[in-house]
Amino acid sequence: MMKLGKKDILGIQDMTVDEINLILDTAESFLEISTRDIKKVPTLRGKSVINLFYEASTRTRTSFEIAGKRLSADTINISASTSSVVKGETLMDTARTLEAMNPDIIVIRHSAAGAPHLLASLVSQSIINAGDGAHEHPTQALLDMMTIKEKKGKIAGLKVAIVGDILHSRVARSNIYGLSKMGAQVVIAGPATMLPRDIERMGVKAYTKLENAIPDADVIMMLRIQLERQKQNIFPSLREYAQHYCLNRKNIKLAKNDVIVMHPGPINRGVEISPDIADDPACSVILDQVNKGVAVRMALLYLLTGGNE
Amino acid sequence: MMKLGKKDILGIQDMTVDEINLILDTAESFLEISTRDIKKVPTLRGKSVINLFYEASTRTRTSFEIAGKRLSADTINISASTSSVVKGETLMDTARTLEAMNPDIIVIRHSAAGAPHLLASLVSQSIINAGDGAHEHPTQALLDMMTIKEKKGKIAGLKVAIVGDILHSRVARSNIYGLSKMGAQVVIAGPATMLPRDIERMGVKAYTKLENAIPDADVIMMLRIQLERQKQNIFPSLREYAQHYCLNRKNIKLAKNDVIVMHPGPINRGVEISPDIADDPACSVILDQVNKGVAVRMALLYLLTGGNE
Amino acid sequence: MMKLGKKDILGIQDMTVDEINLILDTAESFLEISTRDIKKVPTLRGKSVINLFYEASTRTRTSFEIAGKRLSADTINISASTSSVVKGETLMDTARTLEAMNPDIIVIRHSAAGAPHLLASLVSQSIINAGDGAHEHPTQALLDMMTIKEKKGKIAGLKVAIVGDILHSRVARSNIYGLSKMGAQVVIAGPATMLPRDIERMGVKAYTKLENAIPDADVIMMLRIQLERQKQNIFPSLREYAQHYCLNRKNIKLAKNDVIVMHPGPINRGVEISPDIADDPACSVILDQVNKGVAVRMALLYLLTGGNE
Repeated sequence: MMKLGKKDILGIQDMTVDEINLILDTAESFLEISTRDIKKVPTLRGKSVINLFYEASTRTRTSFEIAGKRLSADTINISASTSSVVKGETLMDTARTLEAMNPDIIVIRHSAAGAPHLLASLVSQSIINAGDGAHEHPTQALLDMMTIKEKKGKIAGLKVAIVGDILHSRVARSNIYGLSKMGAQVVIAGPATMLPRDIERMGVKAYTKLENAIPDADVIMMLRIQLERQKQNIFPSLREYAQHYCLNRKNIKLAKNDVIVMHPGPINRGVEISPDIADDPACSVILDQVNKGVAVRMALLYLLTGGNE
Repeated sequence: MMKLGKKDILGIQDMTVDEINLILDTAESFLEISTRDIKKVPTLRGKSVINLFYEASTRTRTSFEIAGKRLSADTINISASTSSVVKGETLMDTARTLEAMNPDIIVIRHSAAGAPHLLASLVSQSIINAGDGAHEHPTQALLDMMTIKEKKGKIAGLKVAIVGDILHSRVARSNIYGLSKMGAQVVIAGPATMLPRDIERMGVKAYTKLENAIPDADVIMMLRIQLERQKQNIFPSLREYAQHYCLNRKNIKLAKNDVIVMHPGPINRGVEISPDIADDPACSVILDQVNKGVAVRMALLYLLTGGNE
Repeated sequence: MMKLGKKDILGIQDMTVDEINLILDTAESFLEISTRDIKKVPTLRGKSVINLFYEASTRTRTSFEIAGKRLSADTINISASTSSVVKGETLMDTARTLEAMNPDIIVIRHSAAGAPHLLASLVSQSIINAGDGAHEHPTQALLDMMTIKEKKGKIAGLKVAIVGDILHSRVARSNIYGLSKMGAQVVIAGPATMLPRDIERMGVKAYTKLENAIPDADVIMMLRIQLERQKQNIFPSLREYAQHYCLNRKNIKLAKNDVIVMHPGPINRGVEISPDIADDPACSVILDQVNKGVAVRMALLYLLTGGNE
């Protein structure tokens, strides 16, 4: 089996198709462990994984923690609010301090784009980007690709519509990189103020109307509206946003009959997706995404600590 | 040995006497593990227990975490303040998200009565109610019953006086259900504003004077005054409350000579119990309660994951 | 091998030279574990270590947690902000509650000097002081001594200059006790308002000018300025402080050529140490200190749970 020739997982932009396939195949093989009666293998016994979260998170931190524990790694959580971050230590000093304690992997979420890259350049350990500002969220894109591949049997040739605040979305950015590399056709839709200016240079077609993006889509990926961004007046009101961009029983008919609906969570029900669509097992794969997330993170922890060597 | 025929532990109200006895007997057998030199058995290796706490807690969360670890389970803590709860996710979506990560048990504390029941109806995993609003706190009642049984050799036939803010107390409610089922005679005392209107329909005698409730009591259970409830003006002042309801060297003489004194903690010393009573090893069993708590929670984690099968 | 004849690690003041040497030697033997591929030994399997932190901390809490996990202990974190401390429980009741759950060791950090001593007198378990107010921080002094010993081959006979806010520094106090016992000559420097009145009775020479303290020093230990103390007007401004007490390329020349520079972290760069000195591998041993910290804490957890018996 191939080995992953990377120290860090910083983004999908710098990943090759072979690397993405290796990660997805490895994750596939880990999926079964979480369904066992004894959900634990000794693979990473004696390895230390630090979850360094500068932004609040349930699903991502919990997913990494469970992934580590199911591989028998020691997991240590540090959240900014209870750490010496409050004492004003720089990220550089925090990084080097943690390095001196000899962990094997540091998983970092940070509001500043590039923070994981800075960390990766400073320390010898493997860094996994668990979301950096509006930049990348590679493990989310990997679990999204894994979900699509499972549900559709392939990624290449599919039409994927990503809808919402593309401009501020690290999920969108990582998925655009990944899905394009894997041969999907990506189209996006959102209010003009939420579309990156140069987005079509990334090879995607952009629309301001949902109805123009989803016709014949195999996959619709709805993005979370960051309610806290409302203050910046980039969209008039949630109600008006929902009126134009909420996926519902009516507009979903424009997509293929067997379209699948994705969302990185947490959902604002009735804003991004109507509740009946979100909960419809015939199209919604939102919980499959969460499920694949644990397997993808297990695969990354495994590959970065020398799995396959 | 009998097996527990329940998916969840939501409350004492829906528990049978046989189920309570099974849990207490199992807990009894686990008590010894915490006194060993090596306080750990491999029973729950590879099981994941999530502690989902929407309210601050030291003792209950720590007790569950220690219980899980002594059985070799993986324990994952989620506290509302550092989680995506702050992003406004509904409890329903949090529940389903966690379910998709394949834990075995979710322990939940929530300020809303019924939250654990909602969770239990939504997910396939076992749910343990670690306190829901003013509704139930079944593990507290179980550890209380275990303590009483150990100290008195039985529960049936005892007179138990519960004193304080009965109306808002999940501890009182769960104990009234449990102790009544087990054959004890329960009497309650508290300010009129803190007594539930229909309480005597639960088969207990209610008094507004402490002195009327504790004569001949075998057990006195003092409830914690929730200081934050003072704003609602349901009682005039702590000082006045203590004057009438604080258990002290004088009024305790009304009870049986061998009365035991209980409190779910944390104690407001001098408000609910005078310090000399709280610290008197001849009557206070407050720390026995804490000790039994770990064993009761070990028993529940064990029984819910298929112990005795 | 000798055994440690203490239940608790409360401070360096009450430690003998033999005890310090035993701890440093034991830590030395644990250093290698953190460099292994599998960084874990089964030594403390089935032991429970509670980290009870009433003050925010990254490095100390993480260091203790990693130390515990590498010895296979179960580690349980309690931080004041998410615990029932917010419910107003006294430290005494918290201590006894935790004791009743049968942990083996409680590590405590508290803003009140003496809190660990109170705990130690109340409970049967071993207590480790992880910093109490402005009193002591024994594990920091031990890791500092271990670092000095490794870099200089000895402690006796060295000149160690400690610079900064001596008055409010538990790090300074523990190091003065420890280094003096081990035969080093300790000198201190800081603004007059930051020097304890009776400091020379501890056997150290005190200066108000950095330039008078560091000539011929083998070791310079810079203390962290607690920015939150500024409100108390004990020093005029960070800028003025840095002008007189920041260790830089120029004033460091007064020390020995092979001087080493220490700091307990987190550093305020440009305030206590200029960045080029802090990052200079020729003199800065700041990250060595962090690295030794894990080994020292492993040694203490080991010795307190009966290691060497």
